[in-house]
Amino acid sequence: MNEPLKTNELKLKDLGIDTYRENIIFLNFDSQVCQSEGLVALTRVFVEFGGMSITATLNVFHSKILRHDEAGLSMEAMKRLGAKEGDTINISHLKPIASLGKVRAKMFRKELSETDFHEIISDVVAGHYSNIELAAFISACSGDNLSLPEIIGLTKAMVETGQKIHWLRKMILDKHCVGGLPGNRTTPIVVSIVAAAGLVIPKTSSKAITSPAGTSDAMETMTTVDLDLEAIKAVVEKENGCMVWGGAVNLSPADDILISVEKALDVDSEGQMIASVLSKKAAAGATHVLIDIPVGPTAKVRSREEALRLQYYFKAVGDALGLHTEVIITDGLQPVGRGIGPALEAIDILSVLRNEPDAPDDLRSRSLKLAVALLELSGKYDAITGSQEARRILESGEALRKFMAICKAQGGFREPGLAPYHEDVVSDRDGVVKSVDNRKLARLAKMAGAPLAPSAGVRFYSPLGKNIRKGDLLFCVYAEAQGELEYAMEYLKTTSSILQIE
Amino acid sequence: MNEPLKTNELKLKDLGIDTYRENIIFLNFDSQVCQSEGLVALTRVFVEFGGMSITATLNVFHSKILRHDEAGLSMEAMKRLGAKEGDTINISHLKPIASLGKVRAKMFRKELSETDFHEIISDVVAGHYSNIELAAFISACSGDNLSLPEIIGLTKAMVETGQKIHWLRKMILDKHCVGGLPGNRTTPIVVSIVAAAGLVIPKTSSKAITSPAGTSDAMETMTTVDLDLEAIKAVVEKENGCMVWGGAVNLSPADDILISVEKALDVDSEGQMIASVLSKKAAAGATHVLIDIPVGPTAKVRSREEALRLQYYFKAVGDALGLHTEVIITDGLQPVGRGIGPALEAIDILSVLRNEPDAPDDLRSRSLKLAVALLELSGKYDAITGSQEARRILESGEALRKFMAICKAQGGFREPGLAPYHEDVVSDRDGVVKSVDNRKLARLAKMAGAPLAPSAGVRFYSPLGKNIRKGDLLFCVYAEAQGELEYAMEYLKTTSSILQIE
Repeated sequence: MNEPLKTNELKLKDLGIDTYRENIIFLNFDSQVCQSEGLVALTRVFVEFGGMSITATLNVFHSKILRHDEAGLSMEAMKRLGAKEGDTINISHLKPIASLGKVRAKMFRKELSETDFHEIISDVVAGHYSNIELAAFISACSGDNLSLPEIIGLTKAMVETGQKIHWLRKMILDKHCVGGLPGNRTTPIVVSIVAAAGLVIPKTSSKAITSPAGTSDAMETMTTVDLDLEAIKAVVEKENGCMVWGGAVNLSPADDILISVEKALDVDSEGQMIASVLSKKAAAGATHVLIDIPVGPTAKVRSREEALRLQYYFKAVGDALGLHTEVIITDGLQPVGRGIGPALEAIDILSVLRNEPDAPDDLRSRSLKLAVALLELSGKYDAITGSQEARRILESGEALRKFMAICKAQGGFREPGLAPYHEDVVSDRDGVVKSVDNRKLARLAKMAGAPLAPSAGVRFYSPLGKNIRKGDLLFCVYAEAQGELEYAMEYLKTTSSILQIE
Repeated sequence: MNEPLKTNELKLKDLGIDTYRENIIFLNFDSQVCQSEGLVALTRVFVEFGGMSITATLNVFHSKILRHDEAGLSMEAMKRLGAKEGDTINISHLKPIASLGKVRAKMFRKELSETDFHEIISDVVAGHYSNIELAAFISACSGDNLSLPEIIGLTKAMVETGQKIHWLRKMILDKHCVGGLPGNRTTPIVVSIVAAAGLVIPKTSSKAITSPAGTSDAMETMTTVDLDLEAIKAVVEKENGCMVWGGAVNLSPADDILISVEKALDVDSEGQMIASVLSKKAAAGATHVLIDIPVGPTAKVRSREEALRLQYYFKAVGDALGLHTEVIITDGLQPVGRGIGPALEAIDILSVLRNEPDAPDDLRSRSLKLAVALLELSGKYDAITGSQEARRILESGEALRKFMAICKAQGGFREPGLAPYHEDVVSDRDGVVKSVDNRKLARLAKMAGAPLAPSAGVRFYSPLGKNIRKGDLLFCVYAEAQGELEYAMEYLKTTSSILQIE
């Protein structure tokens, strides 16, 4: 559809420029291609190498870094093409990308069909959209701007344009938490319990989008998470479960691309969130999916009404995809556990699995609740037998053994470490903790470096209702660089109170 | 508001990278700043030099182009900071840009206040928005997503964040055409007539956004258009009028930034279009503004209903800004004149001003109609005296003398040239021209290189209703490079008919 009209050859020079996910091509202003084709900066061009092709945005060098017969590509573009220094690439004009007409239509609030979404998402996955075009698409689909049939169309398109995992077992369980609660890292505990109960739960997780840590970020501090499909199947075959990064297998690749721009915009929208979650689940081969929606004034979902609307959408879209979807609405008033940040959350997970006496109670009970819901969803347990079994598995150490076995199968277990720089934050008054601002706590952890600095973040010691005396430790900020610690502490000074103590 | 928290110094190396309007900063992966601050590609950072500051997007080099203590900036970023090779720049973390919260609110269809728009547009003008963020803002404001008070708020913000021209004269006339009609280059003729009539019309125009030529592109083939404010005032003082590029003076600078992204998205939306037009007029010091809206099935405005809605918005927003605004709805069924493309349109303009016998009649009568409307709007003429005076000025050669005098005052007149490559397109049948697709003609001219290649474009010989015989010349495509000519001809082959001949 986007076939080149004619080609021009240039020698590739490896400039080693990381532009994150965007395809950028660099040409010198006096290159034969710029001259004969009249190309200028920001033009979109078609680049081919060895049977692969991408669309890239042109940046023009006015210096001696590139010769007239050379071209540079951003690292992402080189990876996508599988090209290296010295290779000859072909550059040509691009015919207009037809699906962008659909994006413009959506900007003008037209209803898009399943076919429209398929065309858009196919072009996105093929690397034909610039970040500007992706941002326009995301913005046009934000708010309540997608109807139910549109969300279904988008979700299906995202599933169909990536790899799908096929399992030999009939029932494949999966779970997802809508997020917004710092430290809410139940997944590794839930997967360990459910897999130990003999059910199959091949869990693929994402890395953080706008939060200080995703499940994969936390797991990555303890084991390898970027397994390929074959390796994942071997782990699940052996242990009934896994806890891997979904990005390493090509499930719903559109989601990863859209998320890179959503992250830059710091925005999540309802329709896209549902499509993102369910496309990953469907592509991962799930048959039964549990969605956990924490609700609280500073969680991602702020009201019960919003949670109920999401519940409806998740079930309706799940139905359309043939997924048995259950939604559980939970309390999202405050952080779960103590750690906020990859390694700090991993430490909490281990203390629950190890049944340590000071393990965070809230993380433990939340994990049990979700494990029970999954056991029930399987149809093999009811509320009472499920609850007994989940508790027995956790308390007996079976869950810990399963967790360690899965980590071993994924490449080996390592103990997560603490960051070298930290600073305590103490209370300036006596009182009782009346409210906790989850968003500000998450932002503080991010400013300290999480999730890119895996041991950075916040350890939180002041849950709702706790009696606090002046001088008591409220929370501790961890960072891997002095600059980041200072940056986080500076943020703390300029922001209004994260905790209300009265 | 976006003050840095702490700084890091790096030596600037001039990489000479043209990224169009986006501020990009290049650091090496082992630079002290990347290391100590935990910065990764696509992070937004704060860059300072000599009291100026910008926000830039980080690209990371993994090569030997930059040393660990060096930084590169895109050409636009260097220009904005006024920095050159060897200068020491400061790089620091950015506090969150507060106005982006307003953009997200708009993505979720919240109504924004005048203050909100002022905050957003101030940050846009200060260079704090990435192209991704600009695309999200533009997309969120597209369609019918802006209310009348919002359009007024956006327009005022765009006026207030740039330079304003103050004139000593009481009445300052101005005009604008909503566009979409290829070749509709009436402005230079209208300005010449109105200025010759003794009225003041300091016309600033834009370059093409999504069209093959803007008035400034056409004028630039005949004279200098990038005059500074002082030079513009001198021209207008002497000749009552000018025809300059608005981008060279700092009128509504937000508009130029937004347009660079709108261009990449190939989108114009109603509210932004009104804000764009009227902010430029208000900043240019106009008191009386004539808006020309051509209507036709393939013009920018397709229906009379849409034109009437625009008329209402233009008048209502004009009122709020204290501008006396008149709207004239004209026929937009086909191209005006023969040329489509900067130099080809300039040739048409000159033939009308020179009263040449084969001057395009439609361009001549359209220009007269608009000149009469402006004479009337001034209150110094009625429909009859205005019409007599406009015709007398054109036919007597006064308009040509005024045009030449203005060009001389702007820096001298030169005759526009024809492109070296061209190809005729002839009819494959007998018949009558039943319809003309303006959009496809405009795209054809763009594919041939217009407006960047100034003498490229299309010369059109087949107006509606013309009797055509097989083999007759329909239009001719001009290009400055063989590659571009081939590209345009290739487009022609794959597109359905531009003309209907029956």
